[in-house]
Amino acid sequence: MTDFILDNRLADSSASVMICEAFDVRLVDDRRYFWALLIPQIPHITELSDLSDQARLTLLSLTSHLSAGLKDSCKADKMNIAMIGNVVSQFHLHIVARHHTDESWPDPIWGKGTPLRLTDEERQHRSHIIETLCASWLANR
Amino acid sequence: MTDFILDNRLADSSASVMICEAFDVRLVDDRRYFWALLIPQIPHITELSDLSDQARLTLLSLTSHLSAGLKDSCKADKMNIAMIGNVVSQFHLHIVARHHTDESWPDPIWGKGTPLRLTDEERQHRSHIIETLCASWLANR
Repeated sequence: MTDFILDNRLADSSASVMICEAFDVRLVDDRRYFWALLIPQIPHITELSDLSDQARLTLLSLTSHLSAGLKDSCKADKMNIAMIGNVVSQFHLHIVARHHTDESWPDPIWGKGTPLRLTDEERQHRSHIIETLCASWLANR
Repeated sequence: MTDFILDNRLADSSASVMICEAFDVRLVDDRRYFWALLIPQIPHITELSDLSDQARLTLLSLTSHLSAGLKDSCKADKMNIAMIGNVVSQFHLHIVARHHTDESWPDPIWGKGTPLRLTDEERQHRSHIIETLCASWLANR
């Protein structure tokens, strides 16, 4: 049993696409960027160093796989990966595909501008890409 | 032999404190935040997924150890860890100790305000903390 409860602000701004081992892989509802979150479904984690060695290794492997896959799928110019958590301290890792043409380039995206909601079609398309990448990651575990 | 050459902008804004396996552990010259960089001395790396599995594991272990150690040493409220690279694409990982009282809190620090140079005393003090943490990491390898 776990008493993990997802922070409301993370729950409201993103949707779960797939659970990969202990990690909830979520799509952020913002069409400006292809933006995924990885959240360990483990209570009381705020820092990378709070995770067990095993969970950290899983996070690293999944992050690297998703980041490389999203870079290809989105033809991204750069991937941004970050663990910040100054506003929402519950541990979450951001993976964001960046393009020279996006509205914040070259600045980081956090706290900039206003999210633009995904259309149903965009949500479906992006979720499918994430699902496919998670499936190929799981197949090699 | 390697043809790794450190990007000038990283070289100018930070100083090497210690080499830990393939990683240059550097102190950013900015007294506003205790801010370290980890840079693999490996040519042509821009993304986390460009690193070998072994180098990624080393990076993860060193990042987690330094982040936990700096959090303690600085009595930080939150650690920020990021791989961005939109301006300088040569791979570098940021580890930044954040405080509720720092000038950018709760925003991310990148691209905000103007760096304030460290005094010699501050540089020596921070370098000593990083050296001690690197030494304890190396002792457990």
